[in-house]
Amino acid sequence: MKIAIIGGGAIGLLFANYLSQSHSVTVYTRTEEQAARLNHDGLNFMRNGEVQTKTITAKKLANNVEGAQLVIVTVKQYQLSDVYSSIQYCKQPLLFLQNGYGHIEFLKKLASPSLFVGVVEHGALKHDSHTVEHTGVGKTKLAVFRGNESELPFRHESIELFPFEVYEDYHSMLLEKLIVNAVINPLTAILGVPNGELVTNAAYAKLMDTYFQELASILHIDNPGQALEYVKAVCRGTSENRSSMLKDLEHGRQTEIEAILGYVLSQAKQNGQEHRLIDFLYTMIKGKEQKEG
Amino acid sequence: MKIAIIGGGAIGLLFANYLSQSHSVTVYTRTEEQAARLNHDGLNFMRNGEVQTKTITAKKLANNVEGAQLVIVTVKQYQLSDVYSSIQYCKQPLLFLQNGYGHIEFLKKLASPSLFVGVVEHGALKHDSHTVEHTGVGKTKLAVFRGNESELPFRHESIELFPFEVYEDYHSMLLEKLIVNAVINPLTAILGVPNGELVTNAAYAKLMDTYFQELASILHIDNPGQALEYVKAVCRGTSENRSSMLKDLEHGRQTEIEAILGYVLSQAKQNGQEHRLIDFLYTMIKGKEQKEG
Repeated sequence: MKIAIIGGGAIGLLFANYLSQSHSVTVYTRTEEQAARLNHDGLNFMRNGEVQTKTITAKKLANNVEGAQLVIVTVKQYQLSDVYSSIQYCKQPLLFLQNGYGHIEFLKKLASPSLFVGVVEHGALKHDSHTVEHTGVGKTKLAVFRGNESELPFRHESIELFPFEVYEDYHSMLLEKLIVNAVINPLTAILGVPNGELVTNAAYAKLMDTYFQELASILHIDNPGQALEYVKAVCRGTSENRSSMLKDLEHGRQTEIEAILGYVLSQAKQNGQEHRLIDFLYTMIKGKEQKEG
Repeated sequence: MKIAIIGGGAIGLLFANYLSQSHSVTVYTRTEEQAARLNHDGLNFMRNGEVQTKTITAKKLANNVEGAQLVIVTVKQYQLSDVYSSIQYCKQPLLFLQNGYGHIEFLKKLASPSLFVGVVEHGALKHDSHTVEHTGVGKTKLAVFRGNESELPFRHESIELFPFEVYEDYHSMLLEKLIVNAVINPLTAILGVPNGELVTNAAYAKLMDTYFQELASILHIDNPGQALEYVKAVCRGTSENRSSMLKDLEHGRQTEIEAILGYVLSQAKQNGQEHRLIDFLYTMIKGKEQKEG
């Protein structure tokens, strides 16, 4: 299959590496420089300290993505407006791999009859413009947003170290990830701690509980006790990891706070729900972004 | 006058330096080591890069403080219980220089007919067990808690660079400092920023406003708008300073969070008032103390 991957970030390059094993992949980048580098020097893929270099096709993203049978959009949610003109009239199937829930409104504006969403649970780290490291093997969850489930890409694909899992309901799939992100990302980013401390430090655990209650009622979570246990299990399972939001702040990069808590706040305000703690954390992160950026 | 100063921290040593100009001062320390060091090597006093060494009398604090005409208690609020046995039956006038408001309950248990409270607005930094730096000249505010105003110490004292100011009402005097401490200390400690950023960073300024509203209603502040302006003026006037709570956390020391937000929370709970944000910040600081300490 001819696949277009929009975005040369960690997720875009990770997908390019694994999908190019049995597909014809083109990576569409924001800059001419990155495309030239990828075309000229190839894609360096690192895992467990080993590096493989792979020939790859890359182009600077122009106003449309020609010839692809599937377009995978890997840019951050806050960058979606930058790629809108390239995909708004696309008739091909599109797969979106953003965090949060805010991009669902964006999807409604697109012309394609086949829209899919995914949640990436791999760890990936971009070292430079043409080098990506697979830091943690997870899976990619997929669900239909618009169109037929039979068209869902990769449903029968089997790639070693890069599994896919199909979900019936995109809403609950995105919500599950949103909850995890909405708890772990802002708290670890403000407290400056790895994920595990949210459960091992008694005060932080209490903090997480209180904060989670506010979140759960805004997002109408069916079984809050179970959802909180899931979040805690993720903290334990990734106890040494520093969350992406913490790393973004440490490196002076924009965070995904809008995609995550920005969406939760918009829901709370729409429904007149209590959101003091979420607003407090949201504003702290916005302040840190101003400062670091 | 014979003055006993209990506590060999920054404030205790600062007071020892200035008061020994015209009084006979003895410093009571927690450890034998510090007393020996002060007696043997003298007190090093630093200001504007210059050092003066002064002969001084120091003793390890025992079960009572003999012979003093005035006892000044300079230990942190959370250390008051450690010195209780030394002062509970004291009949001499006692002056307490703690932050916050929580020590007022402690004072009620004491026998002395003359109890005074003070608020220290000097900057002082203890470099080692017998060296203190006067980093910022401010003043010491004084008020009567129990007894006659005519007995208030230092009301007619004039010491260069070390002024005193008498307040009619100890409650409003302590409250004013409490508000400043309750806003600036926890916010700067969590955000890891100098005081000035609370007003120059737009998101932090918004955070401070929201948080201040909760605080003002718990503490029944008469004129909240004016009080907030005062807090902002302190932020501007000390814009490069890192707050004591931020420094305590950075150095793995216990903070004064109990004396400050612990007291505010106890008031809120007693009166059934909203305290979500204050509890959130309080718990963050407790978690950081667990971690750093």
